[in-house]
Amino acid sequence: MKRLAVLGSTGSIGVNTLDIAGKFPSEFKVVALSAGTNLPLLRQQIERFKPQVVSVLNETLSNTLKGDLPPWNIEVLFGVEGLIQIASLPEVDLVISALVGAAGLIPTISAIKAKKAVALANKESLVMAGQVMVEEARKNGVTILPVDSEHSAIFQSLAGHAKEEVKRIILTASGGPFLNLSYERMKKVTAKEALQHPRWDMGKKITIDSASLMNKGLEVIEARWLFDLSMEQIDVQIHPQSVIHSMVEYIDGSIIAQMGITDMRIPISYALSYPKRLMLDLPPLDLYPLGGLTFFPPDTERFPCLRLAYRAIEIGGTMPAVLNAANEIAVNGFLEQSIGFTTIPEVVEKVMEAHEVKSLTTLDDALRADQWAREKTKQVIEEKT
Amino acid sequence: MKRLAVLGSTGSIGVNTLDIAGKFPSEFKVVALSAGTNLPLLRQQIERFKPQVVSVLNETLSNTLKGDLPPWNIEVLFGVEGLIQIASLPEVDLVISALVGAAGLIPTISAIKAKKAVALANKESLVMAGQVMVEEARKNGVTILPVDSEHSAIFQSLAGHAKEEVKRIILTASGGPFLNLSYERMKKVTAKEALQHPRWDMGKKITIDSASLMNKGLEVIEARWLFDLSMEQIDVQIHPQSVIHSMVEYIDGSIIAQMGITDMRIPISYALSYPKRLMLDLPPLDLYPLGGLTFFPPDTERFPCLRLAYRAIEIGGTMPAVLNAANEIAVNGFLEQSIGFTTIPEVVEKVMEAHEVKSLTTLDDALRADQWAREKTKQVIEEKT
Repeated sequence: MKRLAVLGSTGSIGVNTLDIAGKFPSEFKVVALSAGTNLPLLRQQIERFKPQVVSVLNETLSNTLKGDLPPWNIEVLFGVEGLIQIASLPEVDLVISALVGAAGLIPTISAIKAKKAVALANKESLVMAGQVMVEEARKNGVTILPVDSEHSAIFQSLAGHAKEEVKRIILTASGGPFLNLSYERMKKVTAKEALQHPRWDMGKKITIDSASLMNKGLEVIEARWLFDLSMEQIDVQIHPQSVIHSMVEYIDGSIIAQMGITDMRIPISYALSYPKRLMLDLPPLDLYPLGGLTFFPPDTERFPCLRLAYRAIEIGGTMPAVLNAANEIAVNGFLEQSIGFTTIPEVVEKVMEAHEVKSLTTLDDALRADQWAREKTKQVIEEKT
Repeated sequence: MKRLAVLGSTGSIGVNTLDIAGKFPSEFKVVALSAGTNLPLLRQQIERFKPQVVSVLNETLSNTLKGDLPPWNIEVLFGVEGLIQIASLPEVDLVISALVGAAGLIPTISAIKAKKAVALANKESLVMAGQVMVEEARKNGVTILPVDSEHSAIFQSLAGHAKEEVKRIILTASGGPFLNLSYERMKKVTAKEALQHPRWDMGKKITIDSASLMNKGLEVIEARWLFDLSMEQIDVQIHPQSVIHSMVEYIDGSIIAQMGITDMRIPISYALSYPKRLMLDLPPLDLYPLGGLTFFPPDTERFPCLRLAYRAIEIGGTMPAVLNAANEIAVNGFLEQSIGFTTIPEVVEKVMEAHEVKSLTTLDDALRADQWAREKTKQVIEEKT
């Protein structure tokens, strides 16, 4: 019986995680939940899973929640402190880190310091401070289990094979909804258009990142830290059918790949039950009606975000944290219709160019760069509009 | 340093095996070679690899060879006895069983009894007497390493994952040169047409078996024994591009697949150097220009051999040995133009129908069924012509 803390329980990954936990009550006990502002869904989850501790965004929301709890004993926390407490609870074996964006960094590091196994969906924390996180994980003997479908595919394709025999990994990308759109047309796309991802059902921020290929760029950086690879060993291929979720090429020319339907419960369940697999009751992958699996190189002219991500990790230090923060603010700007879709990479690039890179050895270095980049990005967006 | 005995050194698998051994002289020492009748090539191999022992088809050939050997000490053997001796040499660590057809059975069993690791390309031996071979391997603590690209793909896709979590395996098949031919047109195909395999460069018998899909049928039976699966767990899919060499589906819906270019040196080198991989200097798999990977179900109306193979293993006992022997004789009949291409499955089916199945517990049971089926098949072919 694994005891779980789910950080971000009302988001897409959180909901799917609880779906799995609910289907395998003999495997998992949900000890703690954290949500942001979605109290109605959190209340349902509390009713169903009866956690010991929950945490919400702020004190006001925690008071609202306390006024309407079921008649059993639940501790209600809030804010970053609440997240840190949940991530370090002695009763917890595995922390599912499924917060969106930079907010995931501190609680994830707390879980690692408390020697919890971590199932990581929050790629931004590795992008911001990969070096620090990986070092902490090593020091504390903690396994970071990937939840992203691509990284789960790599993780599964590495199992049973020698790490030092890896030639490169190939992250696949659906290419997003604008794969075949001209740059001119792309300038005018709306948030609504961008929120329609062709393959995966996900949250807003990651869906926009998928449309801009920034998501793939963040995944490249995530893979660099998760699997301890050089950037030359990480390639990206566009694969619109999203059947092959990623691949590993070995020195003998063999490629091992993981495939499946586009249902996040497969990689989530693998992270939850690793090294076991769970008998999921999902429709099997049917290769017959697909018409053909195709692959082609990404177009970094139309999708500059991918190029920016490679550049950020090549520069290193605080630059990936800046890339990540600038992107978060720029995506918000796009969702709020302050800037156009193609302005996202322009803004990010401007902020990166204005950044004085420092080496990154502590969490504070990352947080300071993050803070600086957020302010700077807002300023750049204001100048643009 | 692994010390190798290559049974069938002048065939396609043998030549590729020696290509690998020659490229990695610090990894492999070639101790023994066996060939059938191709003395010119065997002499070249002797010059290059300086084995201690060689064996040829019969005494006449062994005398011819002895008259023209390089000036160092080489023992020359012949016949089944020669093969058995080579397979059991104390100086040998790994026996590459690459004879074609039923001739591979006795030497392969000898290698297993002598506790040698076996790299198995001779699928017919597992088809004829899988139960006996697997039992001997278990008793002697011997690993049978697959050389077939499909079984190597399965073997690689099982590594690092739990056997009891396998839902099914999917063997892929190129479909052969007659994939899209009507049955009427197929009746008239010539041996020359059948010998043009679209993807793999192989020997004659296996190329005809690929065209009839009997090769895939034999592979299904081989997989049943190699991986200890039930027949319901073994599926076949036509995949004309031969990029995915086979796949394993797990209980969570994940599929792990092995991919690569169609070069036998990849699976051969994996079997030779397992659990290590060798740095092969081959062109990498390029997914971009392929146009699309497609998959569809095999048509067992036009390709009845696959259906016959499933039926043979379902019946069990001596029936797979009969299937195999009848097919070998029928393929010879086709190559000698005694029968047409579509007559191959008709002949095999007739022989299977005439066979009184017995249980198979010893090698002799298999050899007797094999002998009976060969005679019977010749008779059936004579009646047809």
